[in-house]
Amino acid sequence: MAHIELNNDLPGIRGLMAYRPETAEPLNALAEMLLRNDDNTLSRGERELIGTYVSYLNDCFFCQNVHGAMAGYYLQCNILQIDQIKQDFNIAPISPKMKTLLTIAASVQKSGKHVTGEQIENARAEGATDKEIHDTVLIAAAFCMFNRYVDGMGTTAPPDRDFYVNRAPQRSLEGYQSSVFK
Amino acid sequence: MAHIELNNDLPGIRGLMAYRPETAEPLNALAEMLLRNDDNTLSRGERELIGTYVSYLNDCFFCQNVHGAMAGYYLQCNILQIDQIKQDFNIAPISPKMKTLLTIAASVQKSGKHVTGEQIENARAEGATDKEIHDTVLIAAAFCMFNRYVDGMGTTAPPDRDFYVNRAPQRSLEGYQSSVFK
Repeated sequence: MAHIELNNDLPGIRGLMAYRPETAEPLNALAEMLLRNDDNTLSRGERELIGTYVSYLNDCFFCQNVHGAMAGYYLQCNILQIDQIKQDFNIAPISPKMKTLLTIAASVQKSGKHVTGEQIENARAEGATDKEIHDTVLIAAAFCMFNRYVDGMGTTAPPDRDFYVNRAPQRSLEGYQSSVFK
Repeated sequence: MAHIELNNDLPGIRGLMAYRPETAEPLNALAEMLLRNDDNTLSRGERELIGTYVSYLNDCFFCQNVHGAMAGYYLQCNILQIDQIKQDFNIAPISPKMKTLLTIAASVQKSGKHVTGEQIENARAEGATDKEIHDTVLIAAAFCMFNRYVDGMGTTAPPDRDFYVNRAPQRSLEGYQSSVFK
């Protein structure tokens, strides 16, 4: 049960967004721009994977499963393959560039000060652009917010991971800006 | 020097926002709603203080000075008094309710899972409403994002703290949604 009375039984961040639509609006707009807007050389699947990995590091069950399912949907792999990436992305079948970006994301999860010039250079050496580096840092930082919001309010989450997998195709169509109402 | 070429010399988050206005828009809208919107029983000064304290815990020089100056401006105290609150809010001349909310914010800074039912009950016992508790958690979580964004991108910040104090009155008039352009 959430720490406050939300007057709804929606899970995770959706219950919080229905409770306080005034703050939900910019939060959803941020998620939409970072994760779904198509004017981006990182694919939707790659961006969802960054959010999933940070949510895993923050041990946020709801977020890592919502966005893990989205990443799996876009990248056409199943939830167990996403789990393998979370557990050790260095040996996972993802691009060398994505490995350097996930390394940066893992630093951001600890603190912005953990990002090093060497990590940035490694990403550049694998072809990452400045905008891709920027978006990686901001996606990782944003999930440090979303994860703390979801868990800091004590929200509930469906334990069955199929719930998230089954919702992913519809969410990919609707996007994040409509998520308050669904 | 920032980790990427921002093509401007604006300090802290302002340089990042000018570099990527598409993500700046929802970030500024979130700051405006959380910190400045007047439909809130927490004063602007109290909300800025929550952001300042979390930025202090995250050791983000730019954010703790921007928002420390804003808190000082609204609460009519100087930057040294804000420093005293950051260093030990329990002995500072702030309300018992604010002490319970800063305790919750400090937990969120570590991880959402650090927020306890007892901390929530203590806040309620001092008169905090559900919405005030919600906004405290979300402000604290949002600053865990802003701080990581600013430091994770390696931005620069003016070392002279008077810079921030002197800007606070004008910022209080302009708000956050215009900050990309100033």
